Amino acid sequence: MRTAIDLNCDMGESFGVYRYGADEEMMPLITSANIACGFHGGDPRIMRETVALAKKYGVRVGAHIGLPDRGGFGRRYMQMSPSEVYDLSLYQLGALDAFLRAEKMTMAHVKLHGALYMMASDDPALSDAFIEAVHAFDPSLSVFTLPDSNTSRSAARLGIRVIHEYFADRPYSDGKVKMFGWTPGEIGSPMDISSRVAQLLENPDYADIGTVCVHSDTVGAPAIMKAIRDRLFPELNPEELL
Amino acid sequence: MRTAIDLNCDMGESFGVYRYGADEEMMPLITSANIACGFHGGDPRIMRETVALAKKYGVRVGAHIGLPDRGGFGRRYMQMSPSEVYDLSLYQLGALDAFLRAEKMTMAHVKLHGALYMMASDDPALSDAFIEAVHAFDPSLSVFTLPDSNTSRSAARLGIRVIHEYFADRPYSDGKVKMFGWTPGEIGSPMDISSRVAQLLENPDYADIGTVCVHSDTVGAPAIMKAIRDRLFPELNPEELL
Amino acid sequence: MRTAIDLNCDMGESFGVYRYGADEEMMPLITSANIACGFHGGDPRIMRETVALAKKYGVRVGAHIGLPDRGGFGRRYMQMSPSEVYDLSLYQLGALDAFLRAEKMTMAHVKLHGALYMMASDDPALSDAFIEAVHAFDPSLSVFTLPDSNTSRSAARLGIRVIHEYFADRPYSDGKVKMFGWTPGEIGSPMDISSRVAQLLENPDYADIGTVCVHSDTVGAPAIMKAIRDRLFPELNPEELL
Amino acid sequence: MRTAIDLNCDMGESFGVYRYGADEEMMPLITSANIACGFHGGDPRIMRETVALAKKYGVRVGAHIGLPDRGGFGRRYMQMSPSEVYDLSLYQLGALDAFLRAEKMTMAHVKLHGALYMMASDDPALSDAFIEAVHAFDPSLSVFTLPDSNTSRSAARLGIRVIHEYFADRPYSDGKVKMFGWTPGEIGSPMDISSRVAQLLENPDYADIGTVCVHSDTVGAPAIMKAIRDRLFPELNPEELL
Repeated sequence: MRTAIDLNCDMGESFGVYRYGADEEMMPLITSANIACGFHGGDPRIMRETVALAKKYGVRVGAHIGLPDRGGFGRRYMQMSPSEVYDLSLYQLGALDAFLRAEKMTMAHVKLHGALYMMASDDPALSDAFIEAVHAFDPSLSVFTLPDSNTSRSAARLGIRVIHEYFADRPYSDGKVKMFGWTPGEIGSPMDISSRVAQLLENPDYADIGTVCVHSDTVGAPAIMKAIRDRLFPELNPEELL
Repeated sequence: MRTAIDLNCDMGESFGVYRYGADEEMMPLITSANIACGFHGGDPRIMRETVALAKKYGVRVGAHIGLPDRGGFGRRYMQMSPSEVYDLSLYQLGALDAFLRAEKMTMAHVKLHGALYMMASDDPALSDAFIEAVHAFDPSLSVFTLPDSNTSRSAARLGIRVIHEYFADRPYSDGKVKMFGWTPGEIGSPMDISSRVAQLLENPDYADIGTVCVHSDTVGAPAIMKAIRDRLFPELNPEELL
Repeated sequence: MRTAIDLNCDMGESFGVYRYGADEEMMPLITSANIACGFHGGDPRIMRETVALAKKYGVRVGAHIGLPDRGGFGRRYMQMSPSEVYDLSLYQLGALDAFLRAEKMTMAHVKLHGALYMMASDDPALSDAFIEAVHAFDPSLSVFTLPDSNTSRSAARLGIRVIHEYFADRPYSDGKVKMFGWTPGEIGSPMDISSRVAQLLENPDYADIGTVCVHSDTVGAPAIMKAIRDRLFPELNPEELL
Repeated sequence: MRTAIDLNCDMGESFGVYRYGADEEMMPLITSANIACGFHGGDPRIMRETVALAKKYGVRVGAHIGLPDRGGFGRRYMQMSPSEVYDLSLYQLGALDAFLRAEKMTMAHVKLHGALYMMASDDPALSDAFIEAVHAFDPSLSVFTLPDSNTSRSAARLGIRVIHEYFADRPYSDGKVKMFGWTPGEIGSPMDISSRVAQLLENPDYADIGTVCVHSDTVGAPAIMKAIRDRLFPELNPEELL
């Protein structure tokens, strides 16, 4: 039986005067923060502040790479060539890495955001381009993605470590996550969610899940993540989780 | 007497479908390329292509850091706090560095662009913020700037190497460069310019000048740079200049 | 003694997924809404929704014109030529007007936002450019601005109606408003503010004040505006205010 | 047999320091200019200047409405809801209209740009949203679009006048235009093109074509448009064409 799992959250999606997501409450609860890199959300100041917040709580940092569509928060599908995906991935990886270097920290992982996450999952040319950018930038990075996705297969091909992800705050049916168009009733209470996650860890069908995501903009995200932590690791501090 | 000097040019300022500057013609003539990082000009694709062009001709690459004002090409003064300058510098340094890493290249220098160049020259709080970002990112980088500027003094204070810059395609009066509002008649022909640069290298007042800049968007920039090269280094190939 | 005054508020400054300001609570309390036009804040959807909200409560609509600096929310001074101010004013006036036309409404006024408000107040070339754009677009519009500002004088010169503005949620000293760098203690409670506004209406020195502004992003903005309304117009509904 | 036809061209797609398209050469040759509105291309200054250029040559002006994707020049398909298309159409119509009002001119038509042109052609929910925005803004505007498109059908439904468009500088096969991925060899010389256009005007299958487009960024666009004009209207000045 599993005794440990990573808990991740999308972070640093505020922009200018605008605040977004419960970053302050979530950071003490998680082990990996996916930080927006100024395309779908975030900006240089928010990136610096979010990296500092992750450092304070000993949370691993990854780049959360989005489409060049701030007005749509990276959630609108956009036609992208493989070379466009390669270029925007490299750019955002580097931009975030600078803030980590300034804090003497090291990037741990990378995750695609929103529509780009699904586009790469579905299209092997795009997932190859993304993974090639990761490989060119730092082949020791891990990639968070869905099991049975092209992103997972591209990473395997290029020798990039994959950590498969389960979305605690999204409904699943037939093993498929429903990213958009769901209702709160479909995901249930924090207790429902934490029970589901606990069962999942004991279910051999989900043995390859290495990280559990709660989005910081889901209503009640901190309560959900806290319920999961309390259920899975009643005696642990966040630094000890993995 | 001087026998060598660096020749630099601002590069990679195209954007999307828009072309800007004579990059293809200039790259074989220079020893240092200052590449735009997607704020005042450039975008991820242009950055990748410009880095590849620099690699082809063995040209050193630096980050050309601009204000977040694509519509004004970074030439409009903007009110910036020191922490905003720190953040935008770090972001752009990292973004360009990713494309260099992908090509197994190393960043050599950094230079501010347009209004930000003058703002930091004039304001010690801004020049300190910029140099602190450079120091946090990579203290082995050189900074290109004007002699007798706050940028130069901030770099000296923090132990960052400075290379003082002479603008071959801008008029000077009383030792001060006139960056804006000049007329072509004030700078003269490529031959006039190359003579002025040659004299400068023999003038002990300019002994601390380490690099000569021609902007790639100056009319006739390749002819100007070629005249300078031919005058200074008649027998050399670009790779041999420094 | 005065029996009526306009109450205005900056509105529609949300953007994409980001919410900003207490628009829903403020709209029933005011008589004029200054709606952001997609430069410093707002976007086409927010503009449509804010116009509809104003229509629902019978509130007059004006264009709130900002600098092209979404990342700084139009609060950073930017170097702008008169023709740039003319062009960006015209563009934003037209963009908002389209949403009014679609609702069979008519634009009533126009107001500059943030740094641009102060820049035009201080610089007659910029205030002339702004007023020329208003004149070219619709000479029947009113302009909200500070008394004793260049904006006011330019409007007078070109025959554009001016409505002088008092900022209820900003401290004044020596008759000058302190737009930035103030503390909540300097403005006091909603009751303090409403008393100040009531006195002002009886003070002949302020006889030319025609509108009172509360910013929708000031902490407690709805409570402040409600206190002002209750004090000034205890028996009136908002539609009856002017 | 036809004796007159409109000649249209996409214009005003420059941005900031960037120049794009042969606007100066094309404007004297055409009868309708589709002017970019600051989303895919153009900016407030370019819009003002392009409107002035159209006025100088007595050319009708229409709004050329694009996706919010300056980096991709509006040529990348983006997921757009009908209400997003409605909102961005209204915004851009209004923005351009302000520059026409300032010149005492009247908008004549509207045309979608790039990927949005094709998206609306293919999707009746998007074409309805676009036409509803046109109707709400000014029901006397004409819409330029492809015959047998959803845009054409939506306009017919809402009583908006349609002018069907033929792309002189794009290859057709089986009556379908090939907007992307064509080669210059497929369109031939200016003389080839002008012959094709002349035949088309005599062909009853094309009787519903009311305007012929040449893109200002097609290589040799002015020569192509001039060949068409000379062939069709050897004795006419541009003002007399329609």
